[in-house]
Amino acid sequence: MSARADVGVVGLAVMGSNLARNLARHGHTVALYNRSPEKTRALVAEHGDEGEFVPSESLEDFVASLTTPRVVISMVQAGAGTDAVVDAVADLLEPGDMVVDGGNALFGDTIRRTQALAARKLHFVGAGVSGGEEGALNGPSIMVGGSEAAYETLGPIVESIAAQVDGTPCAAHLGTDGAGHFVKMVHNGIEYADMQLIGEAYDLLRHVVGLSPAEIADVFREWNTGELDSFLIEITAEVLAHVDGATGQPFADVVLDEAGMKGTGTWTVQTALSLGTPVSGIAEAVFARALSSHRETRDAVQAAFGVSSGSATPVPDDVPGFVEAVRRALYASKIVSYAQGFDMLSAGAAEHGWDLDMGTIARIWRGGCIIRARFLDRITDAYREHPGLVSLLTAPVFHEALDGAGDAWRDVVAAAVRAGVPVPGFSAALAAFDGARRDRLPAALVQGQRDLFGAHTYRRVDREGSFHVLWGEDRREVRA
Amino acid sequence: MSARADVGVVGLAVMGSNLARNLARHGHTVALYNRSPEKTRALVAEHGDEGEFVPSESLEDFVASLTTPRVVISMVQAGAGTDAVVDAVADLLEPGDMVVDGGNALFGDTIRRTQALAARKLHFVGAGVSGGEEGALNGPSIMVGGSEAAYETLGPIVESIAAQVDGTPCAAHLGTDGAGHFVKMVHNGIEYADMQLIGEAYDLLRHVVGLSPAEIADVFREWNTGELDSFLIEITAEVLAHVDGATGQPFADVVLDEAGMKGTGTWTVQTALSLGTPVSGIAEAVFARALSSHRETRDAVQAAFGVSSGSATPVPDDVPGFVEAVRRALYASKIVSYAQGFDMLSAGAAEHGWDLDMGTIARIWRGGCIIRARFLDRITDAYREHPGLVSLLTAPVFHEALDGAGDAWRDVVAAAVRAGVPVPGFSAALAAFDGARRDRLPAALVQGQRDLFGAHTYRRVDREGSFHVLWGEDRREVRA
Repeated sequence: MSARADVGVVGLAVMGSNLARNLARHGHTVALYNRSPEKTRALVAEHGDEGEFVPSESLEDFVASLTTPRVVISMVQAGAGTDAVVDAVADLLEPGDMVVDGGNALFGDTIRRTQALAARKLHFVGAGVSGGEEGALNGPSIMVGGSEAAYETLGPIVESIAAQVDGTPCAAHLGTDGAGHFVKMVHNGIEYADMQLIGEAYDLLRHVVGLSPAEIADVFREWNTGELDSFLIEITAEVLAHVDGATGQPFADVVLDEAGMKGTGTWTVQTALSLGTPVSGIAEAVFARALSSHRETRDAVQAAFGVSSGSATPVPDDVPGFVEAVRRALYASKIVSYAQGFDMLSAGAAEHGWDLDMGTIARIWRGGCIIRARFLDRITDAYREHPGLVSLLTAPVFHEALDGAGDAWRDVVAAAVRAGVPVPGFSAALAAFDGARRDRLPAALVQGQRDLFGAHTYRRVDREGSFHVLWGEDRREVRA
Repeated sequence: MSARADVGVVGLAVMGSNLARNLARHGHTVALYNRSPEKTRALVAEHGDEGEFVPSESLEDFVASLTTPRVVISMVQAGAGTDAVVDAVADLLEPGDMVVDGGNALFGDTIRRTQALAARKLHFVGAGVSGGEEGALNGPSIMVGGSEAAYETLGPIVESIAAQVDGTPCAAHLGTDGAGHFVKMVHNGIEYADMQLIGEAYDLLRHVVGLSPAEIADVFREWNTGELDSFLIEITAEVLAHVDGATGQPFADVVLDEAGMKGTGTWTVQTALSLGTPVSGIAEAVFARALSSHRETRDAVQAAFGVSSGSATPVPDDVPGFVEAVRRALYASKIVSYAQGFDMLSAGAAEHGWDLDMGTIARIWRGGCIIRARFLDRITDAYREHPGLVSLLTAPVFHEALDGAGDAWRDVVAAAVRAGVPVPGFSAALAAFDGARRDRLPAALVQGQRDLFGAHTYRRVDREGSFHVLWGEDRREVRA
């Protein structure tokens, strides 16, 4: 077999198949390998006319079919599955070749694999690929880690298959080793928060305002023409407008209200905790999904307290005014949630020595991925105009939106609290905003308590140094 | 040297020294060893008259001074320090001897060390010791893991030095391997949440009601005579009543409002996330401490939006009524926070095969530790009366308190939201309660979104099975 493929894909489940087809459609000659050859054969049989494929039924033939430096994209399950493929492929590669992990790897694993392959003079690139099955086929957002040298070879390939927005590809080299998978993880966390906030807005429109799912679909369609314009708002309207074929009921009413998750939201919050970055919006979203699936707890609490439907709430006098207030509250909460996400990106960059460009990250999220939105242009602009921006909240465009939302945001949270409609995402965002604005936080009291019970010491507002009060003696202050 | 000590302590920093003195005061003959012998000598010189000490300047002599089966308590730093001590001691022990780790180890490390020592026929016991320096000296709460056989030897020792409440010791064997350190970790997480809630109550009394720290100290003293009676409420009054000697200002006003933390709160939330248990109260407490220390973000946000002091808020007409509402809100939020903590204990027990007795855990937290409170009697009673209790929220005593707090809780959160006083803990607790009570959660919409963009499938309210809508085609529903 002569080497003629310029890129290879290992792992031909839906994501891998679709990425291979996307590559072939963009003029690449794509080597294919899957552990069970049926999937390889099916791909070629069904989609062989979409471009040039070079199928192999052994990993040796697969590697031999690639031109050098070889670029092998692994699209297998994260964890042990990826380790097995990376090891097997690496054994067949030559110095200068490259393995790209396009799965949802934990960034720490990517750092480890990068080091292991570097020791064998092989490039390893962790690339976060967002957009699900449809994105993989028609243009995902691709967040690339690894070395500059690797990106010289890989860049033209991934940029050719990525989503394009305003003529630029939604793919970029973001930093070394785990940077790509780290950014993809934060992306997914932000996606959790976005979905939770939309769910809360829906709940308020449904149970405080009393609109039907079809009416709420119209509200979301309207919102999608303004500053909330985004893929998630668009599909929310689609889901809410859908009528269940079997029952004729609104689809949203026949779906069991227990949300699943696959772990990247959990990783995001765990990592943020290690970095000391508050990501309360993402955490509340993860917890809300977890709570929804704790059926036994929900049943027990409902049996004890009675079921709460929110329907006893009086409908607001000014319905259009309240709907607009919900929109403003949603937008303000979303801004806080993104600010927390970008704070986490900064903290990760500082911790791991990545030179993350926040404007570029927002730019490549504009297309292909689940959180794609016009909103991201404003983030890119904010970082371009203010390169040292400490917090997204302070960028003029968001500052203005938050100022404008102020009363509406508070009205909506207060109304939800009174109605018994849980709005953990809206509340957490508002508390984070109010906390950052506060001249004095009760953290001072916490420091006093810690000094009293554990001699943990405290600092003062008026002098440098650490101090301790001799609480058990004469309560003199001493330097610690 | 003849073997005559019945227990030994390795690591004589403050916690270790105080624990050794506590043992000696209770009639134990205590072997002592510290890497630098100065600490050992100082302990004997200063406190040698408190009981029987057998100091050694080599680990060999230390081990030789212990009667068999030997009980060695390690009080060194968690992590690598503990591994070094455990390994060095284990090399000198004989089958049947025991190493007790009284430090703040991560429970996963305790599981690993238990297995390593079991392979050498040595007992390893992870024991969570709570109560800080003062507790170690005068009676801590001791949460013991490890085998039943180990506790037969160790139990009488730890029960003799633990805090005593109503004639029973605040020490117990809770489960195998990591159970003791796991429970200690959750204890610390609950402590974070308790302190955050108290901080929010203080902030409301200070900046919404307009009371002075001294006046708020009186309020807390009053609260400490009722259902909130606890060590943390008591010391809050002490801290708030304290006047800074240097300035004559309230102490709470001269302490820098940036809260520190040592990591166990972070571990708790990270572990809860892995277990899929919502612990929003603890998470918001950890995030609030993190936010308080992000001075650069706070400064930037305050420069952009102006400082918010809460002082512009109109004082409520009925001050005593509002103070009572804050008390009820605090108590209700505390109940939710403990319910989340006990949910996490259940989830941990299920995951790791521990037969945790919730009533016993609440019982041994009644004394010695930071969260000690009469409140814990009510938890013990709840589990004794209803052994299969799914959620603490549903125990009659807490059910009643939550029902009674309902309107006050909502009034207080709504007032805080309007005043710009951040109450992430109160809000998260209320949202968790309202979420559990809800007949339908917007999780159904989330499942619809996930099915649309990622073919993640959904379940239905009316039929078994998993389903998927062909969103891109004719929108038929198919079985997944």
